[in-house]
Amino acid sequence: MACRGILVGSAARNTWLSGDRDIDIFLAVPEDGDITAALEIAREIAPEHEERYAEHAYVHARIDGFDVDLVPCYDVSDPSRIKSAVDRTPFHSRYVSERIKGMEDDVLLLKQFMKGVGVYGSDLRTGGFSGYLAELLVIHYGSFLRVLEGASSWRPGTRIDLAQGADISGPLVVIDPVDPNRNVAAALTLDRMFQFVAAARCFLNSPDISFFFPPEVQRMHPDEIRAEIARRGTEFVLLEISAPDMVDDVLYPQMRKAEAAVRGLLEREGFQVLRSDVDLVRGGDVRARLLLELSIWELPSVRRHTGPPVWEAEHASRFVRGNPSPLSGPYIDDGRLVVEIPRRYRRAVDLLKGEIHRISLGKHLSSGRVRALSTREIIEMMDEDLAEFLTAYLTKKVRIC
Amino acid sequence: MACRGILVGSAARNTWLSGDRDIDIFLAVPEDGDITAALEIAREIAPEHEERYAEHAYVHARIDGFDVDLVPCYDVSDPSRIKSAVDRTPFHSRYVSERIKGMEDDVLLLKQFMKGVGVYGSDLRTGGFSGYLAELLVIHYGSFLRVLEGASSWRPGTRIDLAQGADISGPLVVIDPVDPNRNVAAALTLDRMFQFVAAARCFLNSPDISFFFPPEVQRMHPDEIRAEIARRGTEFVLLEISAPDMVDDVLYPQMRKAEAAVRGLLEREGFQVLRSDVDLVRGGDVRARLLLELSIWELPSVRRHTGPPVWEAEHASRFVRGNPSPLSGPYIDDGRLVVEIPRRYRRAVDLLKGEIHRISLGKHLSSGRVRALSTREIIEMMDEDLAEFLTAYLTKKVRIC
Repeated sequence: MACRGILVGSAARNTWLSGDRDIDIFLAVPEDGDITAALEIAREIAPEHEERYAEHAYVHARIDGFDVDLVPCYDVSDPSRIKSAVDRTPFHSRYVSERIKGMEDDVLLLKQFMKGVGVYGSDLRTGGFSGYLAELLVIHYGSFLRVLEGASSWRPGTRIDLAQGADISGPLVVIDPVDPNRNVAAALTLDRMFQFVAAARCFLNSPDISFFFPPEVQRMHPDEIRAEIARRGTEFVLLEISAPDMVDDVLYPQMRKAEAAVRGLLEREGFQVLRSDVDLVRGGDVRARLLLELSIWELPSVRRHTGPPVWEAEHASRFVRGNPSPLSGPYIDDGRLVVEIPRRYRRAVDLLKGEIHRISLGKHLSSGRVRALSTREIIEMMDEDLAEFLTAYLTKKVRIC
Repeated sequence: MACRGILVGSAARNTWLSGDRDIDIFLAVPEDGDITAALEIAREIAPEHEERYAEHAYVHARIDGFDVDLVPCYDVSDPSRIKSAVDRTPFHSRYVSERIKGMEDDVLLLKQFMKGVGVYGSDLRTGGFSGYLAELLVIHYGSFLRVLEGASSWRPGTRIDLAQGADISGPLVVIDPVDPNRNVAAALTLDRMFQFVAAARCFLNSPDISFFFPPEVQRMHPDEIRAEIARRGTEFVLLEISAPDMVDDVLYPQMRKAEAAVRGLLEREGFQVLRSDVDLVRGGDVRARLLLELSIWELPSVRRHTGPPVWEAEHASRFVRGNPSPLSGPYIDDGRLVVEIPRRYRRAVDLLKGEIHRISLGKHLSSGRVRALSTREIIEMMDEDLAEFLTAYLTKKVRIC
């Protein structure tokens, strides 16, 4: 059966960053062909392989130190006829190849700059720029420096039409010239977008090699971490949730949802979160980690509970009957009934231990076992992963000038 | 010189509550006469007197155990021609006298009910119902019980026109039949209005003598107060501000303003006030007392400081230069720059001690000496006034069912 091999990705167009080890080869069958035949061929090419799944199965193999993906796809005549997202990739590859000549170094500079300032990668963990997006920006603006100059005046909703595009909204909208209904920057978050903008302005102002190759962040020693936490005077809670072994792009969005749900629970009960972050620990059991830094983690026994306005007679009576022996009240404040009643959870960590199972943590995390650790316990059980996570948390900083 | 004596107030119309000791006698001079002549006559009537001031001077004397006010006024032909607020009183007196026959007991019941449930008095400290307002309500509704029935369905903005009245707004609007541009209930606050409404519903539901004569609140012993505060788990701060010897109607509104300003200062800095109240101590030096009960009174060393959006390049640069060495950051959250910086005041009481002089406490309090006492100091210096104030605070409760 006929099957055409196509080299795609940065390797195909000389925009491959030194150190990259990924080679993508697509195996295209005719539009009405049998894609399983292409998978068979992939298996034969690389007898020692691992099968992975995106929309369809593909073959991943390590060959001579490179990570090679052999991806079956349909060889459609026009991108509007694609059957699966991967069918679009050969068209991207062709679009860029035809226009990038002479600007390959600009793409390399831009990608390495994005990597250096922490915004490279359109995976859902990073929420940054894809390689294809970097290429399109160079094609649109004409050079690495012109991309930075252009980005300096980006605002939320900035739109770049490389083709007559659909009405799409997002922090940045770059219409895919190969498929005008698609935003190439769909995965880019507002904050990553402006992390890039800030760095771009900074670089234009005072260029420096460290934008491309920043000094490595040294993992802090547990004693340093303890001292830094003491200096902040806050309380930390770490939630560790066991998770199934799924890819980052599945787990990260759920971890972010869980983070928002936990913050909501804490804030509804009167606690206050200064900042929070998530991390995923692989190696052995997969565990999602939610780190919460609290500026208010302990509250008095009494809390205010506001009821209906007095003129809603029925509601008011029900409220009074429902709170038969308050610590103070009922009294009237701004027309509404108020009682002061005992609080169920005085400490944030107790609230989390007691109520975490009542909130939705997302499909794959809700069934996981949950541990809630206090600041003291975090410091006691500090492993390398946690020290790295806390180092990144405590030294969080973007380049801006 | 001619001067007509007029007995006004409840004594003039048989609506005088047992125990009241106030007699108001107005001394009316002709519209073009000399009001100082009336003051001279008042001085002669009561040689042992004290001169007091409202819009004009008047004479106050204690005669046979009664508090007698001798008030000079102008005998105008029509209430639209009054020269001073007191000139209106004889018209009120006449209006009520002509209509109240046979309903005097209803007025007495209503006034005593209002007293018993804590809403009687149109002074600015109480913010409740005046005697004249009680009389008008009886005239309008027809009896004590019908007033309670009517009040049961009051809503904010309820309007009672005893004459074609002006367009006035307020929690309750009762047009003065003697002066249709005036709201007789102007001093009534929303909360006092609905304290009355709640009690009225309660009484109709289950009438009881205790509405008229509630059991006296026993002043709590300092040990009980200490125990109750411990049970609530909150922190109290008492601000004591020396004040000039002026009437309640001047000082109370300023104390309420000072209370709001202090709460604003605390909340802007991240602390949280559960409830607060004010009290005025006379006897010796006059002191305004602001009691603040805090549900959040201590905060961590670090605080979040949010700056402009990154796309406002000029503002963003200025913000970064203005915060050169934060504990964390700058980083981007929802498009805005954030730094985490040290907090100036970690304790609410320190904030108050350090910054109280920077906020406006009102005309007569701003120049006063201020002391800020913590819970411990409040309990140590507890005098009878303070024990009474704290008792009222801790047992605050309105009748509602």
